[in-house]
Amino acid sequence: MKVSVPKGTRDFSPIEMQKRNYLFSTLRGVFERFSFDQIETPSFENYSTLMGKYGEEGDRLIFKILNNGEYLKKVNTDTLTEKDTKALTPAICDRALRYDLTVPFARYVVQHRNDITFPFKRFQMQPVWRADKPQKGRYREFYQCDADVVGSDSLQYEVELVQLYDTAFSTLGLNTTIRVNNRKILAGIAEVAGISDQLIDFTVALDKLDKIGKDGVVKELIGRGISNSAIEVINNVLDVKGEVKDMLTALAALLETSEEGLKGIEELQYIFNQTEVLGLDKSTLELDLTLARGLNYYTGAIFEVVSNEVTLGSIGGGGRYDNLTGIFGLKDVSGVGISFGLDRIYLVLDELDRFPEFRTTATKVCFMNFGENEANQCMVYLKALRMAGISAELFPKSTKMNKQMNYANKRSVPFVALVGEDEIANGTIVLKDMDKGEQSVVRIDELIEKLK
Amino acid sequence: MKVSVPKGTRDFSPIEMQKRNYLFSTLRGVFERFSFDQIETPSFENYSTLMGKYGEEGDRLIFKILNNGEYLKKVNTDTLTEKDTKALTPAICDRALRYDLTVPFARYVVQHRNDITFPFKRFQMQPVWRADKPQKGRYREFYQCDADVVGSDSLQYEVELVQLYDTAFSTLGLNTTIRVNNRKILAGIAEVAGISDQLIDFTVALDKLDKIGKDGVVKELIGRGISNSAIEVINNVLDVKGEVKDMLTALAALLETSEEGLKGIEELQYIFNQTEVLGLDKSTLELDLTLARGLNYYTGAIFEVVSNEVTLGSIGGGGRYDNLTGIFGLKDVSGVGISFGLDRIYLVLDELDRFPEFRTTATKVCFMNFGENEANQCMVYLKALRMAGISAELFPKSTKMNKQMNYANKRSVPFVALVGEDEIANGTIVLKDMDKGEQSVVRIDELIEKLK
Repeated sequence: MKVSVPKGTRDFSPIEMQKRNYLFSTLRGVFERFSFDQIETPSFENYSTLMGKYGEEGDRLIFKILNNGEYLKKVNTDTLTEKDTKALTPAICDRALRYDLTVPFARYVVQHRNDITFPFKRFQMQPVWRADKPQKGRYREFYQCDADVVGSDSLQYEVELVQLYDTAFSTLGLNTTIRVNNRKILAGIAEVAGISDQLIDFTVALDKLDKIGKDGVVKELIGRGISNSAIEVINNVLDVKGEVKDMLTALAALLETSEEGLKGIEELQYIFNQTEVLGLDKSTLELDLTLARGLNYYTGAIFEVVSNEVTLGSIGGGGRYDNLTGIFGLKDVSGVGISFGLDRIYLVLDELDRFPEFRTTATKVCFMNFGENEANQCMVYLKALRMAGISAELFPKSTKMNKQMNYANKRSVPFVALVGEDEIANGTIVLKDMDKGEQSVVRIDELIEKLK
Repeated sequence: MKVSVPKGTRDFSPIEMQKRNYLFSTLRGVFERFSFDQIETPSFENYSTLMGKYGEEGDRLIFKILNNGEYLKKVNTDTLTEKDTKALTPAICDRALRYDLTVPFARYVVQHRNDITFPFKRFQMQPVWRADKPQKGRYREFYQCDADVVGSDSLQYEVELVQLYDTAFSTLGLNTTIRVNNRKILAGIAEVAGISDQLIDFTVALDKLDKIGKDGVVKELIGRGISNSAIEVINNVLDVKGEVKDMLTALAALLETSEEGLKGIEELQYIFNQTEVLGLDKSTLELDLTLARGLNYYTGAIFEVVSNEVTLGSIGGGGRYDNLTGIFGLKDVSGVGISFGLDRIYLVLDELDRFPEFRTTATKVCFMNFGENEANQCMVYLKALRMAGISAELFPKSTKMNKQMNYANKRSVPFVALVGEDEIANGTIVLKDMDKGEQSVVRIDELIEKLK
């Protein structure tokens, strides 16, 4: 009798599905309003499509699918006797499970490039799989949710994605801070500091500012062999604080010798200006010069979203990239995209009690069963209710009333209907409001009207 | 540049996703009206959960997931040198991809039996994976869609599932025949014919009636060593035709010595009577004494649905079973369930042109881009439209008009909006109805009103 799901995976119960469906459909609605079109890609891709795209660590965490049939037939015997898994795996696995939505999307764009009208605005909400060590909030199967525009370098889309984040989180009732930075500014700082060749060391340290503080970052920079004069430049940048307008002015002075840095400032200026004109609902847009996530990938704007009400790390992130499809041989496709951290957003909504009130079931009314004749009458009522779009059911057996009521109670059905001999004779239904504990007598058309 | 999806899998483009979402959400709505609650289970299960549940052929077609890390470490060297895949596979795979929704559902019921309120009415719409040879309409990744009630043997649910099929297919605009039979009748025929021990041979042959005709079935029965006297009994049953009422009367006479057969007739009688009282919309309920699908599994009613308008095999099927969870040690859980063949239903809807009219995109209006100032004004309009729930976008660059119009055309956007210098000065928008070819001048509030 001991059965379970594999480690790191989850069943979703009816109430969890209602919450998840609410979250998914809210986001879908927002994506569509912003003219993003949905696509889906297969759960597994060819082995060669995924491998080598996520670094060594990623390659290790990808779930590979064993070939079917006599999969060892053509394998070199030495590979087997030496237990050389590195050589064996590609020989016995032609497919692997999706690790994220980005690489399959790049493959989609390249494969269908002749059918796609660019700029292509797509969203995608699908599970991905990673053989990570499971821990609180980290699963081996989880959903990702991405929106990207590819085939245009227009900054209009950066502005639009800020609006989209604001609309999505505000619709969900969440107050968030949208942090923004620009990779060109980070490159500009490195350039002015004379450490362009240590850009990655610099940003890896910078990214830790939240955790280890400014002194910690300086210590780490020294540890990574960055010179004192360079650290002084970086320090000056980190001291830039205040209103965004003033920050950008101060930054422009510091980076005046870096063309790339000034370009980054100009781009941020545009995003902030436009956002000010358009306004934001429940979100705040914030300039965060230490934001560097996924640096090797991003080439322009960098985004990250955090909840203002729950401390839980980022619940969204993204940025501008110049070479998404390059890995599949299609060059110069610029794009910008954002993702939503669905599992974390779910946790935030749950913790803040911001989900709409869901009951265990969609059922609005449950009829008690008093016997064959009564049940037959109830089935006619059920039909009428369901045709009117109302979720209704009938307990299957005329067992003890407390057992039947228990069924309705446990599923938190809001109304229970009683149809006995008398009610059949009168054409009436006794209706119990399970929340208020009130009882009333109605006809079927009144019941339909009430529950509609 | 040659990239592709793995054989037997599919990408879904925006227009396909709109159709699929329509199909899925229509079915979800119907399930909810009938008080079925949605669950989801992980894409992969423990190897031992799935293996041995689908017969030898099934075991072969299950996709197994290779363990990560040094998966050969503990494997016996002989197993490797002998290339003994039968012994190796379970040693290097702890997990496998879902093959259907039934076994994971059984696992779910057993695992969560203390939290579930029975009878448990659940629906599930998720992909499954099979290493089948791909062919037209058969994929290695495809969605299944099941609704089951477990924990009750009430025939009310058989009646309800007929209503559910009718509601679902009628809502989709499809005319169908719901064929019904009862496994107890098949057992009764075998009993009366004196071939109870050859029940499976009998039904396997019977199931082919559609394809090989009555003579073919008789030939096959003889080939399977069934006696002439038994064949005579079977022939008499196959000759039972006409109105359901008359068929059941004739059948009762033929099976009068079989208690089980008579029980089956009684059950069918109830289903037909109740269905007559409740009525059906676009479907017809038909008694089909040759229907035997999945016999070893079903113990009562057997269902199959076919389109009346397109010849394409069954688009749904199901039945009553007595021992779903027995494979996981939980005995005596009776249930009844039906499934929807989503890929085939999609094909039928497509062929009959019964999908609602979908465009390539959800976008209602696309603004042309005449330059920075004009674009800025358009972004303000976009915000207003989107806040009103209307899907709207702006072309990202002020390139040649025909290139911009081409973008809107290719995506079959219904309205194009033009905002030039004059329009900004006047606070107006030139609106092109792309279907009618008409042009009008509107203000933003009029545009919102028009597109709402």
